[in-house]
Amino acid sequence: MKKIGLIGASGSIGQQTLDVIKRHSDVFELIAVSVGRNTEFMKSIITNFNPKFIAVQDEQCYLEIKQFINEKALSHIELTYGNDALINIATHEEVDTFVNAISGSIGIRSTVEAIKARKNIALANKETLVSAGAIIMPLAKQNNVSIVPIDSEHSAILQALNGEKKDNIKRLIITASGGSFRDLTRDQLKNVNVDEALNHPNWSMGKKITIDSATMMNKALELIEAKWLFDLDMNKIESVLHRESTVHSMVEYVDTSIMAQLGTPDMRTVIQYALTYPERLALDIPTLDFKSRLNLSFEPMDDRRYPFMKLVYDVMDSGHTMPAVMNAANEYGVHQFLQRKIKFLEIEDLVFDAVQHHKMIKNPTLEDILYVDEVYKRGEQIQ
Amino acid sequence: MKKIGLIGASGSIGQQTLDVIKRHSDVFELIAVSVGRNTEFMKSIITNFNPKFIAVQDEQCYLEIKQFINEKALSHIELTYGNDALINIATHEEVDTFVNAISGSIGIRSTVEAIKARKNIALANKETLVSAGAIIMPLAKQNNVSIVPIDSEHSAILQALNGEKKDNIKRLIITASGGSFRDLTRDQLKNVNVDEALNHPNWSMGKKITIDSATMMNKALELIEAKWLFDLDMNKIESVLHRESTVHSMVEYVDTSIMAQLGTPDMRTVIQYALTYPERLALDIPTLDFKSRLNLSFEPMDDRRYPFMKLVYDVMDSGHTMPAVMNAANEYGVHQFLQRKIKFLEIEDLVFDAVQHHKMIKNPTLEDILYVDEVYKRGEQIQ
Repeated sequence: MKKIGLIGASGSIGQQTLDVIKRHSDVFELIAVSVGRNTEFMKSIITNFNPKFIAVQDEQCYLEIKQFINEKALSHIELTYGNDALINIATHEEVDTFVNAISGSIGIRSTVEAIKARKNIALANKETLVSAGAIIMPLAKQNNVSIVPIDSEHSAILQALNGEKKDNIKRLIITASGGSFRDLTRDQLKNVNVDEALNHPNWSMGKKITIDSATMMNKALELIEAKWLFDLDMNKIESVLHRESTVHSMVEYVDTSIMAQLGTPDMRTVIQYALTYPERLALDIPTLDFKSRLNLSFEPMDDRRYPFMKLVYDVMDSGHTMPAVMNAANEYGVHQFLQRKIKFLEIEDLVFDAVQHHKMIKNPTLEDILYVDEVYKRGEQIQ
Repeated sequence: MKKIGLIGASGSIGQQTLDVIKRHSDVFELIAVSVGRNTEFMKSIITNFNPKFIAVQDEQCYLEIKQFINEKALSHIELTYGNDALINIATHEEVDTFVNAISGSIGIRSTVEAIKARKNIALANKETLVSAGAIIMPLAKQNNVSIVPIDSEHSAILQALNGEKKDNIKRLIITASGGSFRDLTRDQLKNVNVDEALNHPNWSMGKKITIDSATMMNKALELIEAKWLFDLDMNKIESVLHRESTVHSMVEYVDTSIMAQLGTPDMRTVIQYALTYPERLALDIPTLDFKSRLNLSFEPMDDRRYPFMKLVYDVMDSGHTMPAVMNAANEYGVHQFLQRKIKFLEIEDLVFDAVQHHKMIKNPTLEDILYVDEVYKRGEQIQ
């Protein structure tokens, strides 16, 4: 049995992780789990999975779940709340595989502690590597811990690298759907609204990542994650527009051979692979069966249309606290946009402005990064 | 240094094998080599590669090359001729990797002897596995010899299987361009001629294989080869029409993940991989760079349009000498067509007639298979 600790259970990745666990209850056991404030969902988790340790965000949720546990006579379940509870899940002694499915920089410290506790890491939390990759990866290496991505692109690359030597990689080719506004010009982007932005053509995901797909920031963040996950220079990491999201990413080798991973846009394949890696398990979901005509298109990435795709290389060239700044400023911008306080293209303006004026903290500690993150997420700057 | 023995050097695969060897003269050394009657080409091989052992088809060619060797004062080169000479190359004591790039059933015995001599086998000769797979594969296993395919489809599958477990394979998906007549209906096929048939849309290959692409027999033979190479039931091997020949084939795993190998249609990548497997070496040829728009299409295989794609499953269901019959009858039919003695669709008629009336030899020996092959290649039958 693989014993799973999961944070962010009520989000899109979290719910699908639960589905994968449920489908293979002979292989996976949910030991410890958190949700934010979705107490109803936590109740259903308790009923369906009977975990040993659970956490919710605040005291009010805690009291509600406490009552539920008492009513159901489930006193063996340990219940807690607050941010430290996430770390308790990440490091729970019975957990061997920690699934970090929470979004935001709140997930970083959990990853760090899980690594120190030598758990296998299945990582959906983007901030961990984007902001703190330079700290996380050496720590993982030092603790002999594998970080397996829960992200269709990085999972594709991991699979395409299976059995191959890193020295033979010519480049990674990360596919991008182009997001909700891929058929609009920059001029047409000026007046798009939130509802239009949230209508992703291929994937059903959370709001933040859907907006990030439309601005291409999501891909920028993935390029950074790929750099850290696969220990490559940024100049070996490229992206290509691929509307259909069928080829999830590719690796080109020195002999011109390109290995690609394809599939339906269903994150359960990705989540399950992260839990079984490097093994596989049967998964009974719809598959790409080639029983009807299929067209796949690829177009060069256009960094005038998507300025973040140029910015990301500059930001990584700078390094230090700059990636954290780009990420946090973007989080602020997206939040403002979702609140309908700024226009779509102003997300870019905010990010470029933040990066341009940021006075870097050299060789930042984790505390430095979390501090920077907090400042820029509030829409403030360190100049 | 990998020490190469090569038969069929003047054919399409042979010439490209020489190109690969030349590009990596620090890694590969051509030790022993044969051509048929192309003595001029053999002279250029001698000049460029200085092999130790060479063979030509008959005495006349032998005498011409003998004279050339004498004139050039290359008396250290051992020269011979005739069919046994192919086996001498396959088993040459200094050879560690035997490249079987000859076409036709004449290549079968060389493969057998190379396996017995425990050489690595790089196999382009289709007849080896199509007709004698049931004998070859156990022999290879027994001698602990790896047979690495020189065929873009099987090479793609081998790469897609790298690092993976056979038990996790759901199916192989072998791509087919559709050949020269893919845009014609069966009715329109009635009066196509040889020149039209030889005009393959994607690949530059020999005449026989180009006709086989047009009838889809080439794909039928590849399905059989795949069955033997990867030790799978035929019901786990499918094909899909893919006009662009960019995705060279795919493997679907039990978790719905599909691994594909992509590239330009250049056999040198395939040949080199067969020589370096499971390693890779840099190869400086044009690559699929995604710098311009690329469209890939996939359509279900249509076995009414391509009756060989149904026949192959029936033939493999029968087994024994039946695959050899299908292959040899087809070889006869293609020869007749290339000689303009029969029409294009009559190739199919000949093959179906041969298979339908063949009285199988059960559990055939290699001699049985070679006998059957000879009979049907002459256009005769065993009833």
